[in-house]
Amino acid sequence: MSGEMYIPTYQDMLDAHERIKPYIRETPVRTSAYLNELSGAELFFKCENFQEPGAFKVRGASNAVFGLDEEQAKKGVATHSSGNHASCLSYAAMKRGIPCNVVMPRTAPQAKKDTVKRYGGNITECDPSTSSREETFAKVQAETGGDFVHPYNDPRVIAGQGTCAREFMEQTGGLDMVVAPIGGGGMISGTCLTLSHQAPETQIIAAEPEQADDAYRSFKAGHIIADDAPKTIADGLLVPLKDLTWHFVSNHVTDILTASEEEIIDAMKLTWKHLRIVMEASSSVPLATILKNKDRFAGKRVGIIITGGNVDLDKLPWLK
Amino acid sequence: MSGEMYIPTYQDMLDAHERIKPYIRETPVRTSAYLNELSGAELFFKCENFQEPGAFKVRGASNAVFGLDEEQAKKGVATHSSGNHASCLSYAAMKRGIPCNVVMPRTAPQAKKDTVKRYGGNITECDPSTSSREETFAKVQAETGGDFVHPYNDPRVIAGQGTCAREFMEQTGGLDMVVAPIGGGGMISGTCLTLSHQAPETQIIAAEPEQADDAYRSFKAGHIIADDAPKTIADGLLVPLKDLTWHFVSNHVTDILTASEEEIIDAMKLTWKHLRIVMEASSSVPLATILKNKDRFAGKRVGIIITGGNVDLDKLPWLK
Repeated sequence: MSGEMYIPTYQDMLDAHERIKPYIRETPVRTSAYLNELSGAELFFKCENFQEPGAFKVRGASNAVFGLDEEQAKKGVATHSSGNHASCLSYAAMKRGIPCNVVMPRTAPQAKKDTVKRYGGNITECDPSTSSREETFAKVQAETGGDFVHPYNDPRVIAGQGTCAREFMEQTGGLDMVVAPIGGGGMISGTCLTLSHQAPETQIIAAEPEQADDAYRSFKAGHIIADDAPKTIADGLLVPLKDLTWHFVSNHVTDILTASEEEIIDAMKLTWKHLRIVMEASSSVPLATILKNKDRFAGKRVGIIITGGNVDLDKLPWLK
Repeated sequence: MSGEMYIPTYQDMLDAHERIKPYIRETPVRTSAYLNELSGAELFFKCENFQEPGAFKVRGASNAVFGLDEEQAKKGVATHSSGNHASCLSYAAMKRGIPCNVVMPRTAPQAKKDTVKRYGGNITECDPSTSSREETFAKVQAETGGDFVHPYNDPRVIAGQGTCAREFMEQTGGLDMVVAPIGGGGMISGTCLTLSHQAPETQIIAAEPEQADDAYRSFKAGHIIADDAPKTIADGLLVPLKDLTWHFVSNHVTDILTASEEEIIDAMKLTWKHLRIVMEASSSVPLATILKNKDRFAGKRVGIIITGGNVDLDKLPWLK
């Protein structure tokens, strides 16, 4: 893709917002006097876990799905994912009434498969290896003609994710910093796309698990470094940066901060207790990094993007 | 109190709303396409668990605290409670900067005591018996001169709770039915106070655990029946009706529906999973009763009051 990489523009984000508004929620922003006191900052939490399918990824997925021309729409969309992108793409396709084919490892949790099916997605299972996934996906795409929507390295997806930061700035009246988790970099890239244009003075901080710190190491090295087999409770953040998200991260991110597994779990429980929301471990990495770098955030207006809320309620990490 | 019972009026509720607005949140209303599909009704969830101290009781407590004249305010307030009323009254008193004395059984959970202390409340412990509580409370009140704010059988408290239904109707543009849990009847009474005046066509349904169904039996019998020692996972609903709340329940409640412990726990987990909010077992009784009486709610616009979100995250009932 790098030879013909299209970098989405601010106008693409504005167009995306108009396109997807009927299909997504303008999620609420929550605050907690207790967490402000604890952190020494003024924290604003943008609750993307409150999207109907439970994650910000419905924004990018909806932008891709509703941007298809009629001819392509008949053939639908296709992707490989075992996480929120699969369910959000299925959800968006269901809303438009078009097919969605998803390749998932047969080892993926049953709950994830059930969600995709509930939204009308067709699952083709593969073995849990890159070669099997690629082979299976090529076959599915050849058979269906479905348009490939990558979970993050796609300009339509990044433009869609950028609509979150636009809402966030309007709802809060401006922020000194925005902190979001980083995995493949879709949400961070969308945030960069929007804020670098409309609020260039707002710092953009990416938050990453220490045990999956490939974005941190890439950022310091100046080129993409992919982890071999990262392992973290923040399982939404296992994937590496790609050329398009690297473009945004390398050009617009202020800094990347990391947190340990224990710090992530503590921040998760704190948020459940005091904001009273159900959110994924991945979403608690920002608060974890803020609490371990208090000086850096003291007295600032800090926005945190709560990226998702699809949690296995039978396996909470602090009860292990 | 019965000889001189003052019944709060609609104007008292309006005055309460003006008085407490700076100290409470206008909590958001959430919806779930999934839960609508499951129930066959159009459900609106009013998230009082998102109040800073985590419960609707901050409304009534704030109305009592901020309605005190200067002279009484110096002596502060006093109550006996081991639940959300204790922390909400402490929170309101902290906001006004006046003393709050709370009598709690020494057996109350440490987390509840910690919350009261965090909000500056003074705790006096008693033995876990009615006689010890009454004796200890009489002593504390005599020593401090604190104004007694009953958890629910107090016109100021009921007027405050009524502000929730007022917001709810404005936010939704009207509802066919409102369902709220019933314990002592404070929230239901406030809801009756507001809706009987401004939306008399809206049905008011109280939802109660089968294992603590004293309100249900009172409603059917036409007079207050108190349970001896009810036991339910919905531990916010153990207390009996009193004269003032009985007035509202007997005059304005359309019906009382009950649910089993299992149904309550199932509804709790469903709500956590699909609304992605942390809420108490008591708050899930309404959804439990709706799901077991679907015919009654089919096609209706039904408001559910999520009363509180203070949960022991280490002891979730579905993980027992």
